[in-house]
Amino acid sequence: MNRRKRVRRVAADAAGPRKADTMPDAKKALILFSPSGKRGRFPVGTPVLAAARELGVDIDSICGGRARCGRCQVEPLEGTFAREGMVSSPAHLGELTEVEQQCVRSGQLMAGNRLSCQARLLGDVRIDVPPGSQLHRQVVRKEYEVHPVELDPVIRLYFTQVAEPDLQFPDGDLQRLLQALERDWGLTGLELGLGVLKSLQAALRQGNWQVTVAVRDERRIVAIWPGFEDHVYGAAVDVGSTTIAVHLCDLSSGEVLASAGAMNPQIRYGEDLMSRVSYAMLNREGAGQMTSAVRSAINDLLVSVIAQAGIDSGHVLELTLVGNPVMHHLLLGLDPAPLGSAPFALATDQALEIGAVELGMQLAAGARAYILPCIAGHVGADTAAVMLAEKPWELDEISLIIDVGTNAEIVLGNRQRLLAASSPTGPAFEGAQISAGQRAAPGAIERVRIDPQTLEPRFRLVGGSCWSDEPGFAEEMQGQTVTGICGSGIIEAIASMYLAGIVRADGVIDGALAQRNPRITATGRTFSYLLHDGEPAVRITQTDIRAIQLAKAALYAGAQLLMERLGVDKVDRIRLAGAFGSRIDVRYAMVLGLIPDCDLAKVSSANNAAGTGARIALLNRASRKEIEQRVLEVEKVETAAEKKFQDYFVAAMGIPHASHAFPRLSEIMPLPDSPADGSSKGHKRR
Amino acid sequence: MNRRKRVRRVAADAAGPRKADTMPDAKKALILFSPSGKRGRFPVGTPVLAAARELGVDIDSICGGRARCGRCQVEPLEGTFAREGMVSSPAHLGELTEVEQQCVRSGQLMAGNRLSCQARLLGDVRIDVPPGSQLHRQVVRKEYEVHPVELDPVIRLYFTQVAEPDLQFPDGDLQRLLQALERDWGLTGLELGLGVLKSLQAALRQGNWQVTVAVRDERRIVAIWPGFEDHVYGAAVDVGSTTIAVHLCDLSSGEVLASAGAMNPQIRYGEDLMSRVSYAMLNREGAGQMTSAVRSAINDLLVSVIAQAGIDSGHVLELTLVGNPVMHHLLLGLDPAPLGSAPFALATDQALEIGAVELGMQLAAGARAYILPCIAGHVGADTAAVMLAEKPWELDEISLIIDVGTNAEIVLGNRQRLLAASSPTGPAFEGAQISAGQRAAPGAIERVRIDPQTLEPRFRLVGGSCWSDEPGFAEEMQGQTVTGICGSGIIEAIASMYLAGIVRADGVIDGALAQRNPRITATGRTFSYLLHDGEPAVRITQTDIRAIQLAKAALYAGAQLLMERLGVDKVDRIRLAGAFGSRIDVRYAMVLGLIPDCDLAKVSSANNAAGTGARIALLNRASRKEIEQRVLEVEKVETAAEKKFQDYFVAAMGIPHASHAFPRLSEIMPLPDSPADGSSKGHKRR
Repeated sequence: MNRRKRVRRVAADAAGPRKADTMPDAKKALILFSPSGKRGRFPVGTPVLAAARELGVDIDSICGGRARCGRCQVEPLEGTFAREGMVSSPAHLGELTEVEQQCVRSGQLMAGNRLSCQARLLGDVRIDVPPGSQLHRQVVRKEYEVHPVELDPVIRLYFTQVAEPDLQFPDGDLQRLLQALERDWGLTGLELGLGVLKSLQAALRQGNWQVTVAVRDERRIVAIWPGFEDHVYGAAVDVGSTTIAVHLCDLSSGEVLASAGAMNPQIRYGEDLMSRVSYAMLNREGAGQMTSAVRSAINDLLVSVIAQAGIDSGHVLELTLVGNPVMHHLLLGLDPAPLGSAPFALATDQALEIGAVELGMQLAAGARAYILPCIAGHVGADTAAVMLAEKPWELDEISLIIDVGTNAEIVLGNRQRLLAASSPTGPAFEGAQISAGQRAAPGAIERVRIDPQTLEPRFRLVGGSCWSDEPGFAEEMQGQTVTGICGSGIIEAIASMYLAGIVRADGVIDGALAQRNPRITATGRTFSYLLHDGEPAVRITQTDIRAIQLAKAALYAGAQLLMERLGVDKVDRIRLAGAFGSRIDVRYAMVLGLIPDCDLAKVSSANNAAGTGARIALLNRASRKEIEQRVLEVEKVETAAEKKFQDYFVAAMGIPHASHAFPRLSEIMPLPDSPADGSSKGHKRR
Repeated sequence: MNRRKRVRRVAADAAGPRKADTMPDAKKALILFSPSGKRGRFPVGTPVLAAARELGVDIDSICGGRARCGRCQVEPLEGTFAREGMVSSPAHLGELTEVEQQCVRSGQLMAGNRLSCQARLLGDVRIDVPPGSQLHRQVVRKEYEVHPVELDPVIRLYFTQVAEPDLQFPDGDLQRLLQALERDWGLTGLELGLGVLKSLQAALRQGNWQVTVAVRDERRIVAIWPGFEDHVYGAAVDVGSTTIAVHLCDLSSGEVLASAGAMNPQIRYGEDLMSRVSYAMLNREGAGQMTSAVRSAINDLLVSVIAQAGIDSGHVLELTLVGNPVMHHLLLGLDPAPLGSAPFALATDQALEIGAVELGMQLAAGARAYILPCIAGHVGADTAAVMLAEKPWELDEISLIIDVGTNAEIVLGNRQRLLAASSPTGPAFEGAQISAGQRAAPGAIERVRIDPQTLEPRFRLVGGSCWSDEPGFAEEMQGQTVTGICGSGIIEAIASMYLAGIVRADGVIDGALAQRNPRITATGRTFSYLLHDGEPAVRITQTDIRAIQLAKAALYAGAQLLMERLGVDKVDRIRLAGAFGSRIDVRYAMVLGLIPDCDLAKVSSANNAAGTGARIALLNRASRKEIEQRVLEVEKVETAAEKKFQDYFVAAMGIPHASHAFPRLSEIMPLPDSPADGSSKGHKRR
């Protein structure tokens, strides 16, 4: 006998649709679902879940109508609905079944609600499907709300009852499982790896032939557990050159259960990307060392979030990972050397889906990893993730999205057209190559104001709330000393020096002011400004200002190049992504000429958009196809190959540079919390 | 720019077809290919390879018309072909090109032949495609020829030139490779694993952007090598409970380059299958130990055949593996315990395709393993391989195929219908549970004759050519002592004892004969026959005879059960597979009643059919689909669940049993090389 024909139908009574066409309407009852508005007439006795499936109403279920998962609970409404011509009553669903009474007692079922797999239609009824019972519900993103995400993870759980082995029909355990999944859930063509297959025999026998199966993309079995299970998790991993962040999510709710971050241990092989690439080129095992280091750090973070959330690591079945091209290559064990010089060839620019074990992740055998696509040699999967978080293609307004790191990745465009480029800003914005520069960490100056009268500064540290001239400052320090100045601090310091007249439009420190305030001192032929006298002293030197001028000119020139390509001379909105983008005060950025002209109210932080994008890819499978397609379509502009970039770059060196942005300075001044309020206008007029 | 549109066509001139429809026939030339008989008119100047592709003529090529591989050589014929209305001349292909002249000098191109990628049509020509230039050529199986195998391995090689990276178009290395493979070879939708991706960057750069790619099933890239490569290998692995055999094949020629065999190291955990299953059940790490042991033994054998053949292990990209269900499960790391008792549930009965690395094989990252499907809990992938080697479904004759091991797997049927079962013979046929039994190894008695007059025996040892009563015997022994008796020796010993009248039809040794020959002695209440007096002595005891009676009755009953199911009372041919099947003298098997009635000329050894089946699956990809389908269709009969099996079993205990086979004894006697010739008839009449 051909066993493929022996697929029997059970549980059809509970979950399967009944044909509604063969009965007179008199023996049928009307059911109306909200919020979908879907409705239909079904034979008396039809389970609510069966009616919902027939009508295509989105109701969740893991157990397939076996009253195990409680996911399918609905609220029957009481009342006369004139427009729909119906009198609805919860009584039209009959008494609570025994199973439902147990669920009410155990708190699994809310009083007044019914399990739609248990309740049967006896008369007309209007049913509300609460968000928690919808399979594809929207996940509200608490922070920095831009786009709600529809929860539709790549993994779904299916509970099923597998036929016991039979001497007469020697179908394997796997074949009987596949038959059950087809019978109960209509799943066909499923595949699985050897690692998952190995867990099948024990799961079936421990679960007494009942198992819960995790299926990825309706195509691949990624876990098999004995009995009923209703939780599956995933983690979004943002591999930055400086820090790595991991967010553990419940794939059934979309909720972030735990987050953890750590320094990228590759830092010991090189602070910035190019030094890591050169370490890989100069040391035979260099790339391998960095690959092991980053994988081990991610593993540690996974252990940490799993422990924080108190979940079973065997239920973490999906990872999404993002990173710039060098991080991407080192994570995957690909050679980063070609990324170190023109033409900056990526090994691959496509999204990858691989076993998590291939990345050295100590997760369940079936766990998979999805790595977002890279865009170009300097524009990585992190930028793809930023794009996915920001979705500039959904707007008519032209968005300029800037992710500032070692390079600045720039995305420009709208519904019609999108461009992307990377500008070689160097790491100055991250505090590197700055005399007293450092990463944004406790002890780093991140806010600076300078009194234009006295030329005296005040500042605030990372994580602090008091200014240095306020009484609470020393107390807040608690023994912490000032250790340096971070990227956003440098921006504000130079902008404030400019607003106070200490720095001229060409970026030169005005040595004549040394007479007015001893903070301005000569160092060789140039001058510097002493921001903080301590151990170490924090000075803003002429070299620092030059480094920032180069960086901001590169950023501005990149944006200008894309704008010219797109044929616009202004943008409608600017989004600043990344750590620097979230700390920077956009008014100062505009004073310095980092970003092009834009309504200040339309300039905002996109915060950790790369991490958000990774999370979206984790929770919504369609978003993966979407970003893969957008990455193909986005026009890649290579600044190094564009002559105009050099012209724009040179033109953008001044502070503030000679552009249409300059006249608007009057609007953004006075700076409300700055002592420079009155004088800035005077400065402008000068 | 959407890079997916930038697939450029190069090399089209050499290899691509030219449209033949736009020119008057006058400017076209006729080309006729043999042996296919395909013909067509093509514009003057068309390369022969392009014409062949257009016509669907099977000509091999790895380099895609770049005159690198020499695979496409053809022979232009001279002469007038009246029936085809053409005068063919090699001159109609013009002079040898410079590249071809080089190939002739290097011996790569036979004098008179042409490279079809280089030669162009100038006039009418008839072209012979020699077998060596055909992609799908038949592999002649030297030994035990039954079915020729069409060479169509799952892996093919493609040489290609990849575009260099370009600053303006940031396509990744992989994307440019995929573009080249689509452009040159029409391959689309290819995928690859991370391990192979890791080799891409170096291969492209070392090969100066020329690479050879191994593609599996036109779907998956499994290797990328710099420059031009034209060899790819695979190995067929037969995992027996006693021995493991590995055959290394050249996938481009089908040739077996090297073979190696070794004892299955699992023997240290249990001699037979059931003792290994019980070891796995009684020891927590037992199954894991046996999995490691067998994988390590296969690895060692692979190292050995690779060294023998002197090839690069990185070019071994495909394995096929067969084994009985317990071997299958232990190899894969699945729990064999459920196979130890009814209902003998397999974890899976489908064929598996997995990374060779998942089986712990130390091969190239992209190497894959194909494990043939199991049929039932006692009928494994080895039987599937036997079926594939024998193809009983291609015959109208009814075949009975028996693979004797610990159990006897039996396949019965023809074109219309196929049945399979396993009979619980126990390991007696392998020499186990026999007082002086041993595996077939040097020192084991494998042939026995007994003089019916004197009752004196003579025997021959495994590997020997002299009988024990011949003068050369002692010399041949060279210090080797007689160590025991193997399965085929036992069969002949008992059959000879029966023919000499020492054993009665009920299997009892006739104690009265002790008076005629002192070799017959009493042991307690029963008697035994001393075959060899030495250290150790080799006796055939009453218990030994009972064990063989049980085993042969089980085998016969299994065959009878299947015959009854199929509705036949005789079979047209019998094939005996496996080591026992290849050593056994079928006449003695028939005397004992091991096998049902059949024309003796139609009883033959299928030798190592399981290994042959594994090799077929290695060399011909369609054979995999075929055996997967046949395994689904074959009717599985579980002897343990059939009441009739018990009846047949009891009825088959006698020697020779009371069946229609018995009358034919007169035909198979006299045994030509037996001194019992004359007497056997007497015995029969008795």
